[in-house]
Amino acid sequence: MIDFATQPDKYRHWTLRVDGPVAELILNVDEDGGLKPGYALKLNSYDLSVDIELYDAVQRLRFEHPEVGAVLVTSGMERVFCAGANIAMLGQSSHEEKVNFCKFTNETRLGVEDASEHSGQRYIAVIDGTAAGGGYELALATDYIMLVDDGSSAVSLPEVPLLAVLPGTGGLTRVVDKRRVRRDRADFFCTVTEGVRGKRALDWKLVDELVPRSRLREVAVERATAFAAGADRPTDAVGVALTPLNREISETEIRYDTVTIALDRENSAAQFTVRGPETKPPADLSALHAAGVAFWPFALARDLDDAILHLRANEPELGTWVLRTEGEGALVAAYDDVLEAHASDWLVNEITHFLKRTFKRLDVSSRSLIALIEPGSCFTGTLLELALAADRSYMLDGAFEESNLPPATVRATAMNFGPLPMGNGLTRLETRLLDDADAIAALRDEIGNDLEADVAEELGLVTFIPDDIDWEDEVRIAIEERQSFSPDSLTGMEASLRFAGPETLETKIFGRLTAWQNWIFQRPNAVGEEGALKLFGTGKQAAFDRKRV
Amino acid sequence: MIDFATQPDKYRHWTLRVDGPVAELILNVDEDGGLKPGYALKLNSYDLSVDIELYDAVQRLRFEHPEVGAVLVTSGMERVFCAGANIAMLGQSSHEEKVNFCKFTNETRLGVEDASEHSGQRYIAVIDGTAAGGGYELALATDYIMLVDDGSSAVSLPEVPLLAVLPGTGGLTRVVDKRRVRRDRADFFCTVTEGVRGKRALDWKLVDELVPRSRLREVAVERATAFAAGADRPTDAVGVALTPLNREISETEIRYDTVTIALDRENSAAQFTVRGPETKPPADLSALHAAGVAFWPFALARDLDDAILHLRANEPELGTWVLRTEGEGALVAAYDDVLEAHASDWLVNEITHFLKRTFKRLDVSSRSLIALIEPGSCFTGTLLELALAADRSYMLDGAFEESNLPPATVRATAMNFGPLPMGNGLTRLETRLLDDADAIAALRDEIGNDLEADVAEELGLVTFIPDDIDWEDEVRIAIEERQSFSPDSLTGMEASLRFAGPETLETKIFGRLTAWQNWIFQRPNAVGEEGALKLFGTGKQAAFDRKRV
Repeated sequence: MIDFATQPDKYRHWTLRVDGPVAELILNVDEDGGLKPGYALKLNSYDLSVDIELYDAVQRLRFEHPEVGAVLVTSGMERVFCAGANIAMLGQSSHEEKVNFCKFTNETRLGVEDASEHSGQRYIAVIDGTAAGGGYELALATDYIMLVDDGSSAVSLPEVPLLAVLPGTGGLTRVVDKRRVRRDRADFFCTVTEGVRGKRALDWKLVDELVPRSRLREVAVERATAFAAGADRPTDAVGVALTPLNREISETEIRYDTVTIALDRENSAAQFTVRGPETKPPADLSALHAAGVAFWPFALARDLDDAILHLRANEPELGTWVLRTEGEGALVAAYDDVLEAHASDWLVNEITHFLKRTFKRLDVSSRSLIALIEPGSCFTGTLLELALAADRSYMLDGAFEESNLPPATVRATAMNFGPLPMGNGLTRLETRLLDDADAIAALRDEIGNDLEADVAEELGLVTFIPDDIDWEDEVRIAIEERQSFSPDSLTGMEASLRFAGPETLETKIFGRLTAWQNWIFQRPNAVGEEGALKLFGTGKQAAFDRKRV
Repeated sequence: MIDFATQPDKYRHWTLRVDGPVAELILNVDEDGGLKPGYALKLNSYDLSVDIELYDAVQRLRFEHPEVGAVLVTSGMERVFCAGANIAMLGQSSHEEKVNFCKFTNETRLGVEDASEHSGQRYIAVIDGTAAGGGYELALATDYIMLVDDGSSAVSLPEVPLLAVLPGTGGLTRVVDKRRVRRDRADFFCTVTEGVRGKRALDWKLVDELVPRSRLREVAVERATAFAAGADRPTDAVGVALTPLNREISETEIRYDTVTIALDRENSAAQFTVRGPETKPPADLSALHAAGVAFWPFALARDLDDAILHLRANEPELGTWVLRTEGEGALVAAYDDVLEAHASDWLVNEITHFLKRTFKRLDVSSRSLIALIEPGSCFTGTLLELALAADRSYMLDGAFEESNLPPATVRATAMNFGPLPMGNGLTRLETRLLDDADAIAALRDEIGNDLEADVAEELGLVTFIPDDIDWEDEVRIAIEERQSFSPDSLTGMEASLRFAGPETLETKIFGRLTAWQNWIFQRPNAVGEEGALKLFGTGKQAAFDRKRV
């Protein structure tokens, strides 16, 4: 089992140091600390285990260290910043392992940018030596790249010439779209194994500053201190410890405080039940801070986040995620009101963005998402996003004959109108009702109202509203049918239909770049017996089929 | 050899009828008229040969029929509009054949939309019976979809449930992005083999109008006549006949009037030489119209267009296209001035958009593009777009020692600042100098000036400016090196670096959707011996690897 939960005292590859407003993340990869046997993580190359720690560190910086305004990303290894993804690891990984690994890496790096943009924790990459491939891609996710000017330190994206794959975890997109490197220079850069150094790296905007090695530490701290001073961080806040999750995993079920997942292998489905809060929200901000990870939206984000990552990595055959909720809608609405009322509080801000990132993980999970809205469910506000993230939803029209529960309802809150945007920059409602401002306005007018099935359908919130008689059959067929389709075509279809409207750096990375990388990860020129990824390091030359496709 | 040149009297699958302002394109596929043996094009299913004719017809409507303001797309077959791409053909095609086929289909359908948007020739799909898969995708490219309301006529995208591939020629993107079908409804629609008909098709925005069969012809003509009446078409213009190209193909060379391509198999390269005009442009509009296809920009667009299509389909191993020009820059500038001065003339408008589409083909060709700017070359205005479309360019700094020719220059004209946008909606200069308005303004100030290498480099127009001593080695290495890389990784890299900046329906189709489709076209679930595409029609059920990726 791949476990995404860790903590700094368990890190094997990173060291997290905090010194007032400036933190430092030091990469010193343990060669023998990889997830699987069969490869050594030399030269600060990484596998998923390295990124799991990075993700944890970035999260802890946001929640446990409100005082930090700048983070230096450095290497603990001499003359090497990071050599990127380990090639032997890629060579022995299955297709789904490669794709899943890249997806998490992308999410983690977008998370670094999210911390910079929304938490005012700015990242600086300090490159002494070589930053190659995924190593440079890590640097590209930071705000500011410093490179030692010593005639040999270099940044490079050697994937194309060396490995016959792409700099596919954001590199190509960030070079031209984020850093505005001219496309022809980017073309050259991405075909030069040894990369670019010194003045050319600076002139071409591949790095932001050249520094002599002798002054590297001094200048790095200077820049970080200046960034931190300009950051809008709380000065006397106390962080919230990310204590271990309360999680139980059995053969048939995964259970968290706020989420339970039944592993329904017969239907190749994971049956989610997400529970709303059981108590009213804290009375004020200090009570909220005191509650910490027990504050329901925070607990929800943590549980759901871990659940998504766990299922993606460990349950690839559960292709359909069925999303149910239970609880009291009014309580969710009360929590949503708290999130809205205290949006400017640093912790509330962090929790909201964490929720946002968690729902974004759903959007890019290659799983079919079906929401079931039944009596007793709780698709209100934050939890309504689950239904809006779903590929389709079924809402019972009326009540079940044998049940005392009143008819199912859904309810919008302010959380559905801005704080939880998708990667395309729109809310899920805006993406759903693309350019239909009247429909959005009509929904806004309904904030606070519990909407029964017919109204929810009319307003465009749900897909189908079968009644008591049809419910079981319709839902059963939807789930069974999904299982009968090719998982690959579903992935491509869902990735295309989920992101109507504008594109952003993020959707380009998850859509275009990822799709091309996935394609190349299938091609004999990369992964065949004579492919570059298989033969790397053997001294043998890859034999390419020269046909251009 | 696959030949893209045809003409209406050679069509086997389409009939083009023109009746004043309304034209009709009738699809009646000749079962035995496919490009290759081994499949029958039943039920108006198509292969590349059908789309080659459609492309020809759309072009002729724009150039030969200026009087036409609306085009009805109908079927000559009872109760079937079009069954989409022929499955047996897909099943027996190689990967590169499938991908190339889809690319051309995408370009042709975007061409229909281009005719509507820029020529005021609006298209109406008249569906009596079933429009399935690529058949409905064809309809999606039109402005208006009419469906017979008879309880059985239906539109469908059954690729996912039936074939384990995607509606990959624009279908998924157009459904949610162009027609604004809600994503959850699109999800349902794309998983229902039999599709959607009648009121639901209309309510869900899958079609624009339901008509009883008895009134279909009448209403279709009524709509077309109304569209044509509203179109801004010239009333007394005379079309220009698209006479056969003057083309010679040998083992080593392809020669057109304005383009020669040496087939350099040693370097896996096609060496283009594009020739500027030899004479001054026509003195006035009537002389321009009289020149017709001999008018240099028109001839250039036709030659280059055919050359690109020919090389893509018939020379897949020539992975690098080296782009040279020759001629007098001042003459190109004079032609560009004519195009600008008469931009509102219908024929000049058509020629300019044809040039635009032709350069767009370059952008989405999976070939490395290297521009060589040497003494005697002619990278001015319209021809400068070739250098701007290239992945990189080399411009000789100074003259060759052994030559009398003066140093190479490049020159911008108004054509580089708007009339020839890329698929992302930006000019190639804007994409190149993303968000750098000052750099664009500086280039605009240089319109009309011949720029030598050092200035061209400083202004960001060219990549490298080797001198006489380094030229041969640098260029040779660039071309040889390209040949040593994996063709697949180059395709993915180039597709990513060429399109910085905004995304449009078009870039989504060529980027995201195409990449996913290409990926799926490699997957065992689709193309393996047990894959859906291989087993379709055999009665056997595909065996899927259920792991989600």
